[in-house]
Amino acid sequence: MILLVNGPNLNLLGEREPEIYGRTTLPEIEEMVRKAADGWKVKTEPFQSNHEGALIDFIQSKRKEAKGLIINPGAYTHTSVALHDCIKALTFPAVEVHVSNLHAREEWRQKSVTAAACRGQISGLGPRGYLLAAEWLCAEIASKR
Amino acid sequence: MILLVNGPNLNLLGEREPEIYGRTTLPEIEEMVRKAADGWKVKTEPFQSNHEGALIDFIQSKRKEAKGLIINPGAYTHTSVALHDCIKALTFPAVEVHVSNLHAREEWRQKSVTAAACRGQISGLGPRGYLLAAEWLCAEIASKR
Amino acid sequence: MILLVNGPNLNLLGEREPEIYGRTTLPEIEEMVRKAADGWKVKTEPFQSNHEGALIDFIQSKRKEAKGLIINPGAYTHTSVALHDCIKALTFPAVEVHVSNLHAREEWRQKSVTAAACRGQISGLGPRGYLLAAEWLCAEIASKR
Amino acid sequence: MILLVNGPNLNLLGEREPEIYGRTTLPEIEEMVRKAADGWKVKTEPFQSNHEGALIDFIQSKRKEAKGLIINPGAYTHTSVALHDCIKALTFPAVEVHVSNLHAREEWRQKSVTAAACRGQISGLGPRGYLLAAEWLCAEIASKR
Amino acid sequence: MILLVNGPNLNLLGEREPEIYGRTTLPEIEEMVRKAADGWKVKTEPFQSNHEGALIDFIQSKRKEAKGLIINPGAYTHTSVALHDCIKALTFPAVEVHVSNLHAREEWRQKSVTAAACRGQISGLGPRGYLLAAEWLCAEIASKR
Amino acid sequence: MILLVNGPNLNLLGEREPEIYGRTTLPEIEEMVRKAADGWKVKTEPFQSNHEGALIDFIQSKRKEAKGLIINPGAYTHTSVALHDCIKALTFPAVEVHVSNLHAREEWRQKSVTAAACRGQISGLGPRGYLLAAEWLCAEIASKR
Amino acid sequence: MILLVNGPNLNLLGEREPEIYGRTTLPEIEEMVRKAADGWKVKTEPFQSNHEGALIDFIQSKRKEAKGLIINPGAYTHTSVALHDCIKALTFPAVEVHVSNLHAREEWRQKSVTAAACRGQISGLGPRGYLLAAEWLCAEIASKR
Amino acid sequence: MILLVNGPNLNLLGEREPEIYGRTTLPEIEEMVRKAADGWKVKTEPFQSNHEGALIDFIQSKRKEAKGLIINPGAYTHTSVALHDCIKALTFPAVEVHVSNLHAREEWRQKSVTAAACRGQISGLGPRGYLLAAEWLCAEIASKR
Amino acid sequence: MILLVNGPNLNLLGEREPEIYGRTTLPEIEEMVRKAADGWKVKTEPFQSNHEGALIDFIQSKRKEAKGLIINPGAYTHTSVALHDCIKALTFPAVEVHVSNLHAREEWRQKSVTAAACRGQISGLGPRGYLLAAEWLCAEIASKR
Amino acid sequence: MILLVNGPNLNLLGEREPEIYGRTTLPEIEEMVRKAADGWKVKTEPFQSNHEGALIDFIQSKRKEAKGLIINPGAYTHTSVALHDCIKALTFPAVEVHVSNLHAREEWRQKSVTAAACRGQISGLGPRGYLLAAEWLCAEIASKR
Amino acid sequence: MILLVNGPNLNLLGEREPEIYGRTTLPEIEEMVRKAADGWKVKTEPFQSNHEGALIDFIQSKRKEAKGLIINPGAYTHTSVALHDCIKALTFPAVEVHVSNLHAREEWRQKSVTAAACRGQISGLGPRGYLLAAEWLCAEIASKR
Amino acid sequence: MILLVNGPNLNLLGEREPEIYGRTTLPEIEEMVRKAADGWKVKTEPFQSNHEGALIDFIQSKRKEAKGLIINPGAYTHTSVALHDCIKALTFPAVEVHVSNLHAREEWRQKSVTAAACRGQISGLGPRGYLLAAEWLCAEIASKR
Repeated sequence: MILLVNGPNLNLLGEREPEIYGRTTLPEIEEMVRKAADGWKVKTEPFQSNHEGALIDFIQSKRKEAKGLIINPGAYTHTSVALHDCIKALTFPAVEVHVSNLHAREEWRQKSVTAAACRGQISGLGPRGYLLAAEWLCAEIASKR
Repeated sequence: MILLVNGPNLNLLGEREPEIYGRTTLPEIEEMVRKAADGWKVKTEPFQSNHEGALIDFIQSKRKEAKGLIINPGAYTHTSVALHDCIKALTFPAVEVHVSNLHAREEWRQKSVTAAACRGQISGLGPRGYLLAAEWLCAEIASKR
Repeated sequence: MILLVNGPNLNLLGEREPEIYGRTTLPEIEEMVRKAADGWKVKTEPFQSNHEGALIDFIQSKRKEAKGLIINPGAYTHTSVALHDCIKALTFPAVEVHVSNLHAREEWRQKSVTAAACRGQISGLGPRGYLLAAEWLCAEIASKR
Repeated sequence: MILLVNGPNLNLLGEREPEIYGRTTLPEIEEMVRKAADGWKVKTEPFQSNHEGALIDFIQSKRKEAKGLIINPGAYTHTSVALHDCIKALTFPAVEVHVSNLHAREEWRQKSVTAAACRGQISGLGPRGYLLAAEWLCAEIASKR
Repeated sequence: MILLVNGPNLNLLGEREPEIYGRTTLPEIEEMVRKAADGWKVKTEPFQSNHEGALIDFIQSKRKEAKGLIINPGAYTHTSVALHDCIKALTFPAVEVHVSNLHAREEWRQKSVTAAACRGQISGLGPRGYLLAAEWLCAEIASKR
Repeated sequence: MILLVNGPNLNLLGEREPEIYGRTTLPEIEEMVRKAADGWKVKTEPFQSNHEGALIDFIQSKRKEAKGLIINPGAYTHTSVALHDCIKALTFPAVEVHVSNLHAREEWRQKSVTAAACRGQISGLGPRGYLLAAEWLCAEIASKR
Repeated sequence: MILLVNGPNLNLLGEREPEIYGRTTLPEIEEMVRKAADGWKVKTEPFQSNHEGALIDFIQSKRKEAKGLIINPGAYTHTSVALHDCIKALTFPAVEVHVSNLHAREEWRQKSVTAAACRGQISGLGPRGYLLAAEWLCAEIASKR
Repeated sequence: MILLVNGPNLNLLGEREPEIYGRTTLPEIEEMVRKAADGWKVKTEPFQSNHEGALIDFIQSKRKEAKGLIINPGAYTHTSVALHDCIKALTFPAVEVHVSNLHAREEWRQKSVTAAACRGQISGLGPRGYLLAAEWLCAEIASKR
Repeated sequence: MILLVNGPNLNLLGEREPEIYGRTTLPEIEEMVRKAADGWKVKTEPFQSNHEGALIDFIQSKRKEAKGLIINPGAYTHTSVALHDCIKALTFPAVEVHVSNLHAREEWRQKSVTAAACRGQISGLGPRGYLLAAEWLCAEIASKR
Repeated sequence: MILLVNGPNLNLLGEREPEIYGRTTLPEIEEMVRKAADGWKVKTEPFQSNHEGALIDFIQSKRKEAKGLIINPGAYTHTSVALHDCIKALTFPAVEVHVSNLHAREEWRQKSVTAAACRGQISGLGPRGYLLAAEWLCAEIASKR
Repeated sequence: MILLVNGPNLNLLGEREPEIYGRTTLPEIEEMVRKAADGWKVKTEPFQSNHEGALIDFIQSKRKEAKGLIINPGAYTHTSVALHDCIKALTFPAVEVHVSNLHAREEWRQKSVTAAACRGQISGLGPRGYLLAAEWLCAEIASKR
Repeated sequence: MILLVNGPNLNLLGEREPEIYGRTTLPEIEEMVRKAADGWKVKTEPFQSNHEGALIDFIQSKRKEAKGLIINPGAYTHTSVALHDCIKALTFPAVEVHVSNLHAREEWRQKSVTAAACRGQISGLGPRGYLLAAEWLCAEIASKR
């Protein structure tokens, strides 16, 4: 099972600042990822919350069964030491995804507190960035079976 | 409708460090603002929470009906990129209010992460700062009708 | 009596970078403030100068008779320790006003050297920010009579 | 009554990165502290949450009855101005505890935002750090009876 | 045609610090990418150099015919304004790839000068990061045909 | 008409620290520039003041008739946001001139606050730097007639 | 044997800035610690000096026989790399103690150079902080016998 | 002749923030210095202005006849590169005086831009600091006659 | 002979980001400069490279015969200590030219590492900036014959 | 009694870098100060040491009898928090003296850690700076008798 | 075999800024080192280039046969992450040499990016610094035979 | 005579953190250096102290007779302005030695306060670094005889 976790304001994807974030909605992304993982016989479990604590609660509650984590921590990317610590405590790989290219935005959006606890990061490649993360995780899981 | 949103510890207004924050309580402020807006035939919807996520949930849930936002993000002023992004996604104006004068306090209280997403900021003018914000928003709404 | 002091380049309000500062002129603002204060039986004394020293001279010369100060120090907001010290020496409250939202502009426009010496600051609410400041000061004066 | 508050990810104590945080679990610590306080005829009320807001809610709700606070804010130590403000509003002493030695870890873990609002801090002395804090608070309470 | 450009020391991939960079060699990666792109009927043109100028020369020389760029600028990632400017002048998308997770390494490896000129960045996902970049570019090209 | 504006202490040119600023006096420079502009049938209007406000007053007063501005803000180069704003409000091009090479002097002389509001800057080329600026402005004016 | 080492100006405890450091004298603290350790059958060896070098000499001279170190490096806390290196060379645990809460004082008192070489730090808990350190060390020693 | 120059707000000495600046007025100081210099048969020429430019104008206008400068640049101490350059151009020694101890005040008051251009600085010794400066200058002048 | 040296990506002048750099090509600029220098009977030797080392090789190889250097180091302006050292070793004057106004661009483009080794810098005046540099150098050379 | 304390390397005054520190020796200075204080019927007690700890020992040992302190902490000026704390604990005024003008030297010599604990500072006025400090202290003592 | 690698502008040794770098030429240094190594029966292979990439190419090409590296990266010392990575990939020791004392020069010359990848650094000891490096490497090689 | 001075904790060489500092003891190093200097008919005078002041006392006391200084200031390297000033006052050359490679250690160990006052620095070459320093000094002395 792969966790597909999205942080604050990502429930507004497709509606909020579309010139930056595009017009694909979060349910559409969750569906895309579900289908892609299906091809690898891997389940996905999507979750979105605006609460830092709820994101941690969710990840902790699944930490025994999950095999991978796709996470877009939204604004918590830049501030949440708590999420960093939560991800660091996992025994399976996590991939951080950002729809927009953080490196081309405000200075303070370029620093990721959470990415250091992940295996890697994909940013700027739009909704399809989630797909790439899913593919990578599925292949990783497959290679370990 | 104007949202009147107060962040962490502001439920203690009137009780906590009164030499800095004064003795007016939050319900009193909410009442003052309600009355002032009434004069403009504008409703207000007050909300207070210590949860960053709950503040975002509330604002998002009202984003279709509301016409203005008065927000005192309390301590989240200085740290919450998530609230910043949430406010930025709104299509109506927001005014940030602070009871005390941030510019005359600790260095790290002088930076507002959230104000950049608002139309403006009023700080240091005590509980009546909320009134000024309400008046400004009501006039703004009236001018657009 | 309320002093209404405007710093460098604010004599060009309405003409200079109107996409940022709007199209209302300084004389119009001075008139608006005069009328609002009239309603409280409070006089206003407007002054504008591009000279840091002249702003200080003016404020000092009125420091015995005035009851309040509305000041938009313009560019001196960010650099003038001298104005800060001048305002700090006053025995009546001062309110700093900015037409545009400093928090949403260049990094170096976000720091106010002078605001720490004022009672509070209103920024980003356009020419009507002056009105709010006048109202607040008049009420303050009234409450002390 | 002494509050024993633990922040995000501390529910994983004993399981998460044991080479840093050791193998004692949070329930074991809560039991140790309970027993120690019992010796002083002082009750303890334990609470753990991954939610910044929930930690504040809990502390606020107990602020009338409690006599002391032991708090390990976990990752919120380094970022939470809101918790700082919440603790500062208390009328009884708080002691911050960290299992690991913050001074010997990453640069950004060395700064504590919350400790400034506490009476003191104990860090690096393992689970027994909680015991020392309890003892100190009990003695403090006893000396005031 | 997709350009596959690798910067300084990446010719040593598989041999240099394998605990960080793994044991896959650059020719193996170039072959992997070639095959993946073949599936999309897209040609690849690989290039590696330790010379900042040679990397720029190569990219400039292909700027009329190429449709996409995969680039791992190696150490130049952190210092080369010249590469940044070169990529910015392109009219087709570029994806920056890093084998290791920059966010989990030395502070000074976390800043990418070049990524701001790219569409996005993939880091930490090992040699397969190149594959993901290729897939993304091929799909992008296909969607524009 | 081209304005030729010189800031504080530049009236001492030729006398003050000649090993840095040379021995040409300001009247000599004003004469040189006048002659050069004469060749293009362009008038010049020289002005020098040690007062930041007077420099702004002068430029503002001529802003309707002038076609270009040559300005050496002297020490105000490094500190004057007010001059920056004043120049930014102009509708004709300005060229900043410095007799000495700022880039080879004290760290704090290398930053120009005012140059960002100008079209360009010439520094280090001695009194003849003024001539180059005049020539460039005259050609610019000529090309627009 | 536990070393009880106090740095510069701590011989003035009880006399110097009592509003910060309290009224307990150093001999009183040394006696308190001696008694507490006696209960564990552990000897203490107190030492105070204003000389950085003398503190190092003392610690080095006892490094073969001692089993623990309680150290309040006073002002050297913030500057002494030499003490840091000296403590790091020890094979038994050290606990740093501060009478006042460093986290609530001047910025530059919040950084401890020496604490990184210790096992942990207790700060802000007054003279009783020494007692807690002694207890912790004695228990640690007992657990290793 | 010794110039005795005082900058912005120093005309309010004795009245403004007396807990910091004391109760001696500027005319009293000017009289004290006049008398002290009289003893050395040296004239003094006092000047005060709130205008940075006026301070420079005055010093420049006296630069041929004066033999020494006592200057308290007030708030311009911390910001005025123009005054720095003006003093640097003098051929006689200048002594900077501050009534309060800059080193014990706000961080940003500790840096003096102007002092680097003076021979020395006296700060924190109250109004008598001016006397010491006068004495030193008179002795210096006497030693050169 | 005057060297006319252009750094990385300047071969794309006229084509790359024309809204910043204009539409004049490098060959056109080289021709303009050649003609202008011809008028002074001075030869020019143009050179462009994307290689930092090649720029240094070229300048070194001509250092015995050349009389002046016009250099636009492109992106190396901001990073190349090696070019700085190379220019510093010359015995004839160098003038740095930038087509766009560095002072009005990204923070990190405002610092010039190389300009400190030149006699001066011209920036923001478009392709004609090269002409001004040529004129200045020719006049300089003429004045020394 | 006035303490006259000199820190490290000041025993080499007159010999070490005379172009900066002049040719007067420390014994000469001590004699000068002794004579000046004699005129006020005040004794002086000179002390010099290269040991930070010895300077503190000396000052502490005299803290009951002394009435004033003249101190040139030499290099410890910039680093010694311990001396700062020692001086802060005194109940009589201290004046810091520096022979050279710290404000005109290396950046890191411009910050004084110790001056914040003194009443004031005299710097740059050569050996006679000690005399001014003595005079000031004697007058201060006299005014309190 | 020992590699003797010199970076940009070091081919000008003896000619360029001799007051800093002395009058010994690079060929003379290469000869000195060759002779010294001959005494240990160790060959040397000298190389100089102004091209960062060429330095890396050379070192990589010799990385199988060489036993030691003496490198003076010239200006690349302060900027080249690429050289750092290249040296780090070597399996034999490298010694960095600088003719002048970096610690006594400009701030930005004091940081060495490359030295962290070397075994050690010798700086400030003139051309003979190369000899010391050679001797050390030869002894190291001898001790491993 | 060459002084061989070692600072704090270097008396523990061979025993303290041997994985960093190796297993050679200080007496062994002193003997090695003595023998090497003997070959040049140069005497050595070794000294070690943990006291900053004692190091200065020693160097000052020998400053008339010594011809060279080898100094490893240990931790004082990074903090001691006093040692810097002491070395700067010498008329013979000093070489700073560090056993470990400072450039590859903690950020704050990379800065040397003392090296700027020395002729040069050798770091990272183990105990033999002292030998190289001795050799260099002996040759230097010999060349001046």
